[in-house]
Amino acid sequence: MSEKLNRFKEILGEVSDIGHAASVLGWDQQVNMPPGGGEARGQQLATLGRIAQEKFTSDEVGSLIEDLKKEFSDLDTDEGAMVRVAARNYDKAKRVPPDFIAEQAIAGTKGFNAWVEAKSKSDFSIFLPHLEKNVELVKKYVSFFPPADHPYDVLLDDFEPGMKTAEVREIFGNLRPKQVALIKAISESRQVKDDFLNKKYNEKKVWDLGEKIITKFGYDFSRGRQDKAPHPFETTFSVNDVRITNRFETGNPLATLFSAMHESGHAMYEQGVNQSYERTSLESGTSLAVHESQSRMWENLVGRSLPFWEHFFPEMKKAFPSQLDGVSAKAFYKGVNKVEPSLIRVNADEATYNLHIMLRLELEIGMVEGSIAIKDLPEIWNARMRDYLGVTPPNDALGVLQDIHWSYGSIGYFSTYALGNIISAQLWEKINKDIKDLDEQIRKGKFDALLGWLREKIHNFGHKYDPQDLIQKATGSRIDSAAYVRYLTKKYSDIYGL
Amino acid sequence: MSEKLNRFKEILGEVSDIGHAASVLGWDQQVNMPPGGGEARGQQLATLGRIAQEKFTSDEVGSLIEDLKKEFSDLDTDEGAMVRVAARNYDKAKRVPPDFIAEQAIAGTKGFNAWVEAKSKSDFSIFLPHLEKNVELVKKYVSFFPPADHPYDVLLDDFEPGMKTAEVREIFGNLRPKQVALIKAISESRQVKDDFLNKKYNEKKVWDLGEKIITKFGYDFSRGRQDKAPHPFETTFSVNDVRITNRFETGNPLATLFSAMHESGHAMYEQGVNQSYERTSLESGTSLAVHESQSRMWENLVGRSLPFWEHFFPEMKKAFPSQLDGVSAKAFYKGVNKVEPSLIRVNADEATYNLHIMLRLELEIGMVEGSIAIKDLPEIWNARMRDYLGVTPPNDALGVLQDIHWSYGSIGYFSTYALGNIISAQLWEKINKDIKDLDEQIRKGKFDALLGWLREKIHNFGHKYDPQDLIQKATGSRIDSAAYVRYLTKKYSDIYGL
Repeated sequence: MSEKLNRFKEILGEVSDIGHAASVLGWDQQVNMPPGGGEARGQQLATLGRIAQEKFTSDEVGSLIEDLKKEFSDLDTDEGAMVRVAARNYDKAKRVPPDFIAEQAIAGTKGFNAWVEAKSKSDFSIFLPHLEKNVELVKKYVSFFPPADHPYDVLLDDFEPGMKTAEVREIFGNLRPKQVALIKAISESRQVKDDFLNKKYNEKKVWDLGEKIITKFGYDFSRGRQDKAPHPFETTFSVNDVRITNRFETGNPLATLFSAMHESGHAMYEQGVNQSYERTSLESGTSLAVHESQSRMWENLVGRSLPFWEHFFPEMKKAFPSQLDGVSAKAFYKGVNKVEPSLIRVNADEATYNLHIMLRLELEIGMVEGSIAIKDLPEIWNARMRDYLGVTPPNDALGVLQDIHWSYGSIGYFSTYALGNIISAQLWEKINKDIKDLDEQIRKGKFDALLGWLREKIHNFGHKYDPQDLIQKATGSRIDSAAYVRYLTKKYSDIYGL
Repeated sequence: MSEKLNRFKEILGEVSDIGHAASVLGWDQQVNMPPGGGEARGQQLATLGRIAQEKFTSDEVGSLIEDLKKEFSDLDTDEGAMVRVAARNYDKAKRVPPDFIAEQAIAGTKGFNAWVEAKSKSDFSIFLPHLEKNVELVKKYVSFFPPADHPYDVLLDDFEPGMKTAEVREIFGNLRPKQVALIKAISESRQVKDDFLNKKYNEKKVWDLGEKIITKFGYDFSRGRQDKAPHPFETTFSVNDVRITNRFETGNPLATLFSAMHESGHAMYEQGVNQSYERTSLESGTSLAVHESQSRMWENLVGRSLPFWEHFFPEMKKAFPSQLDGVSAKAFYKGVNKVEPSLIRVNADEATYNLHIMLRLELEIGMVEGSIAIKDLPEIWNARMRDYLGVTPPNDALGVLQDIHWSYGSIGYFSTYALGNIISAQLWEKINKDIKDLDEQIRKGKFDALLGWLREKIHNFGHKYDPQDLIQKATGSRIDSAAYVRYLTKKYSDIYGL
């Protein structure tokens, strides 16, 4: 049997190598590639994807999985988990015909082009037939799988293995009224000042400070690097080569600091996965929401906390004396936590962000189950924005057309962002129970106990446990928004004197 | 039949994609990779190499080649050439057993490690058993192929398709006495001054000037880029993404300019290959010697010419007024062409370089045919250095142990460097016949007619013709050193007043 396991690992290793090679090509495309390189790069990525798919969906893999499932049925062992996760991925890969994938890719490209035009003209009708096509294909995708409690479950499962639509709705349902009430209370309070954030900051100084911060966090530059790219992202070439990208926008200069913290959170998760999981189905983080819990934790619970700025503000002020003249650590802390309901998700603050997500989740569910006619989306969008955030998009470009996701048919992804926020607060409460003086440590610029906790309870496990099981093991309860509500309420009560 | 051709091209395309993906990974390894990434990267490259090999050596490819050979027998057509080149590569790939390749890789790694130690201790005896092993494996490699006129032919053919040992020996044999005599004459003349080359130069200014020069040459930065790496090299990801690397050494600051010109010569060759050859056996340059003829032409025949510096020296002087104070364009030209017999090949000037190569070729042939005992190499090396260059290595580190090539069993490569020099001069004579005012154009900083000629006569053909055929077509004669002797004699007569 160990011969079968070895052969199984050999194939998983090859598939992993090809996937990582594709990641290098994708990273290079964003970071370095000259304009001429695009066409060939697309072809190279398609070839690598096809080969990996062929290797992984071979009959040999299928029969190895069948045999190994019997032998390694204890899911608490690494081998058992490895076979379980591979079996699930294999099942998914086998159910979706290659022709369908090609059809979806073509529709996605057309949809993306139409979306670009529609957004530039702020005319939803240009995008409408393409979104209808994308949703039709998503429904067809769902039909390849056994009936679920809700058709949306199938989509969600690709990003949050094991998570059900009903669970997410319940979690969000508990959270929404409280978050709406909180925002209302904030909007009736005196707004905090943040004019100092909009001054001119030197790019290199900001960049270097960002690297200094994430080095202190524990992001290991000997196993990673940070480069400039149009959008910040994290990418993994192996547990020992986990890279992040970042950007600098003159209009929002300090966003570079928070992006560095955010991406380093993703990267530290990947750098912390058990090295013995390399080149198996257990390598890398278990789900998008758990990943997002790590990035959001370092960005918000650490990086937008008062103890953090009590430590770093003196250095910040030394680097930018004129910009921060007369600003205290506390005032700076308040400024980087300013709440302001706004139209655009990606610019939303911590208090309002989740509401953007909940809106999208409800619309996605409606489209997939057919309870929402796609032509009515703009109207529904605008009505919900008024309900949740008290703002009304003046046009579709600033409303229903703002996100790229639906343009290429990606449906099921959005809720992971909000779940990440929720999980981060849940972990944070537990960490603060286990590390009593965490605030004090952060105030001293010490993050090793925090990272150590995350390494032990989250990172190390890679893909071994599904999100709900992992959070249960780490905190003693399933994913739940109560801690997040407590966190937001406490934080904004302090900042806005609620 | 067109169905078979399509299938054939499909497989060649996939193999090409995998090869280019591996090139991206290799480039990243040299340019970006953090220290931790090495182990996984080696594994990823091994996996890609194995998959490409498996795909290319399948029985399906074999039978496609057999069928297509009959149908596309006209070697002057693109399809005919494509099948011919693929058939040769297929034959080579099939003859060498995978186990042998693995054995050679292991011996190569051990040899490399022993060589590093031997070189650092300047003790050939440490490296001796490994070189003996490497040579034994090279002989075994030769034995997989049908008997050739000379066993070394088999090795040479991997780098210079169709070229025979006897041909190279004849070419070199004609050249050597003339080159030795020239160097003797130079050494009896008054040495030129080059002290201004050894001053302190600002790295960024030198780098930027290098990029300005190669942009004027015609290296297309929208289909390429230049990055820092430990060693300068050119690498191809597609005809529209051809990159170069460079370095800056404080001790030899202007070498960066000549390296940029050299690598851009390689890169312009690759950027100029017929776009319709992409993803086939005809993509990229035809041989290492022809490649080297392009890099050497831009570096030496253009970049170390008087007209070139008559154009660029004012700019150079503007960038470096103190370093070049009192230096004229002519004096600068003489300085960058200083001849000085020396011990180390990679630092050798244009006049002495080939002699370093000839020495290595004779020793390689001797080792392969068994006429030279490997233990006697240091002695033979030193004796030849005295004969050819009039210098004697004080130790083996500066003698027989200086090059990396033999350490990992690479034998057959060296002569391509000298052949490249020879071809570059041969092309240059023909170009000057076709473009009467070339010197005048260069003096004005105009290179488009020159690049246009190379595009039409060399670059465009990619792998379609073997080196000898290509040079015959371009110049009307086979590879021959006469033009090179005329070029060297004229140039150094001017510089040294011979």
